[in-house]
Amino acid sequence: MADIVVKRELESEDGELSLKVKKRKVISDNVGEEGEPECQKILSGFKTSSVLSDYTREKRIFIHGTLADQDAVVIMEKTPFREDDLAEFFSNSTLKLDMKNDIYSTYKLRAPPHLNEIKTTVVCPATEKHLNKYKRQESFLVEETKTDYESITLPFIEKQNTFSLQWVYNILQKKAEVERIVYEDPDSDTGFMLLPDFKWDQKQVDDLYLIAIVHPMNIKSLRDLTAEHIPLLKNIWQKGQAAILERYSLPANKLRVYLHYQPSYYHLHIHFTNLGYDTPGCGVDRAHLLSDVIQNLQSDPDYYKKRTLYFPLRVDDKLFSTFKEAGRV
Amino acid sequence: MADIVVKRELESEDGELSLKVKKRKVISDNVGEEGEPECQKILSGFKTSSVLSDYTREKRIFIHGTLADQDAVVIMEKTPFREDDLAEFFSNSTLKLDMKNDIYSTYKLRAPPHLNEIKTTVVCPATEKHLNKYKRQESFLVEETKTDYESITLPFIEKQNTFSLQWVYNILQKKAEVERIVYEDPDSDTGFMLLPDFKWDQKQVDDLYLIAIVHPMNIKSLRDLTAEHIPLLKNIWQKGQAAILERYSLPANKLRVYLHYQPSYYHLHIHFTNLGYDTPGCGVDRAHLLSDVIQNLQSDPDYYKKRTLYFPLRVDDKLFSTFKEAGRV
Repeated sequence: MADIVVKRELESEDGELSLKVKKRKVISDNVGEEGEPECQKILSGFKTSSVLSDYTREKRIFIHGTLADQDAVVIMEKTPFREDDLAEFFSNSTLKLDMKNDIYSTYKLRAPPHLNEIKTTVVCPATEKHLNKYKRQESFLVEETKTDYESITLPFIEKQNTFSLQWVYNILQKKAEVERIVYEDPDSDTGFMLLPDFKWDQKQVDDLYLIAIVHPMNIKSLRDLTAEHIPLLKNIWQKGQAAILERYSLPANKLRVYLHYQPSYYHLHIHFTNLGYDTPGCGVDRAHLLSDVIQNLQSDPDYYKKRTLYFPLRVDDKLFSTFKEAGRV
Repeated sequence: MADIVVKRELESEDGELSLKVKKRKVISDNVGEEGEPECQKILSGFKTSSVLSDYTREKRIFIHGTLADQDAVVIMEKTPFREDDLAEFFSNSTLKLDMKNDIYSTYKLRAPPHLNEIKTTVVCPATEKHLNKYKRQESFLVEETKTDYESITLPFIEKQNTFSLQWVYNILQKKAEVERIVYEDPDSDTGFMLLPDFKWDQKQVDDLYLIAIVHPMNIKSLRDLTAEHIPLLKNIWQKGQAAILERYSLPANKLRVYLHYQPSYYHLHIHFTNLGYDTPGCGVDRAHLLSDVIQNLQSDPDYYKKRTLYFPLRVDDKLFSTFKEAGRV
């Protein structure tokens, strides 16, 4: 199971708190009530060494430093506004004018601290592994021709430990996560399993995210798809949309359905996300709309075998090193 | 010029503060020093009517209400963490434990208000137009076949006021924004102008965003492209990348180069953005990689004339209404 968690954590590209932490939170949510002091200044002794990453759009920061002489990582994220608090919020905030022009004015607002809390996670002691995980890694766009795929990417995939896909096989064989299945079509050629993605907490449909994992065992990625897979892809498109409509009342025209290339694991799977949610990983540089894939295969059975594909790779990705060794980046 | 601003504001899809406000800010940045009171509680009298939109990922909210009996919109956005403030921040914050397990612990942190300010904009009095602009509109995925394009979209485009493209012609004829040109190729068949997008403040390369506007006057969008345009597209790709490398030292493998369909205006233009920046509008549901477009036209000269294309449209988009009237959504 540890392997599953690690593998899936890798799918989180924007440094969100990991599943592991989230899971642990559920297990021991009430520790605070077991005699811990209400308020602490434990970070007053924290000495910053470096900012590992800083997501300014999301107001989230990962900081490496020391706490009582131990390596530690502090993760802070500002919290969304809470509608219920707005009246108290407005009553008790002060504003400093920045500029005023016509009907527009801008201010710096200072809110009461209890209405403007910051979600904070402390990892202490932190290991080298934590530091690498939280460190923002640069990405480069890689060009992969048909020849590059055959001589670089395919040998790379084939060298991977097949055990790393065990968690996928467990799902397909109903040895794990049976209770999470949203829909299943058992056909060995055109069938699939539909499950919530681990990044989705299933609390609201706003950020709906499901994954369809195909039953055929020999399709690694987009590169393996040919016209013979059109029935499989159409089946997933139609039945996946129908299952989501039935379970979550979200119609097909509110869904973004796509594949990743490169994928994070090499057993074909398809992403279903809410169109209204700006899902990490739905960018044009990595995602391929299922509707486009089907049309491309209809007009050219070997479209994805011949095509030069472009995708971003992080510099700490082993595939990136492999391209680099081959002199292709 | 008013028309330019309005048109370009429409390109901002996630409700960011408009160019208009940003521009005005520059003009009158120092009003606060001209005798305005330092701190105010002007929002203590604000009465919330409704939340127009709430961007929880970005911690930004648009609220409609009344201020001294006038309609007003309050826009608040939490600010990114500031590295320079971290030491003072840690010294003076208190933490309340949520959970502790092994090396992980999570807290709610309360920071000194002056280190945790909220950027606030007040629009007062606000008009119906403001409310509509700031209201989050639902989007639906629209399917556009070749026939839909010919019978719905093309007549819609042709009915548009040609004056709405005047700002593009002004740029191409060097009647406006001459000082903003980053690169220009004057060839009437394969040439283009490269300029910073208005959404980019040009302060850092991290969120670099430029637009290449083509010189040929008769290409409305992706739908008009055929094999004859391959030299134009290749020229933009190569010279655009070279110009960005020279001016901003950002190499081609750090760039995401794409077209929008539907575009926000119907004169062909191509987006160059920093691959490392999660640009709004780079999602697979609206963006088409230039490298894919070129390859698709190489293998099928009429690829984009025949293809069924999918794209999201906001319900308040006139094109959406046109599709609806035609019974296609």
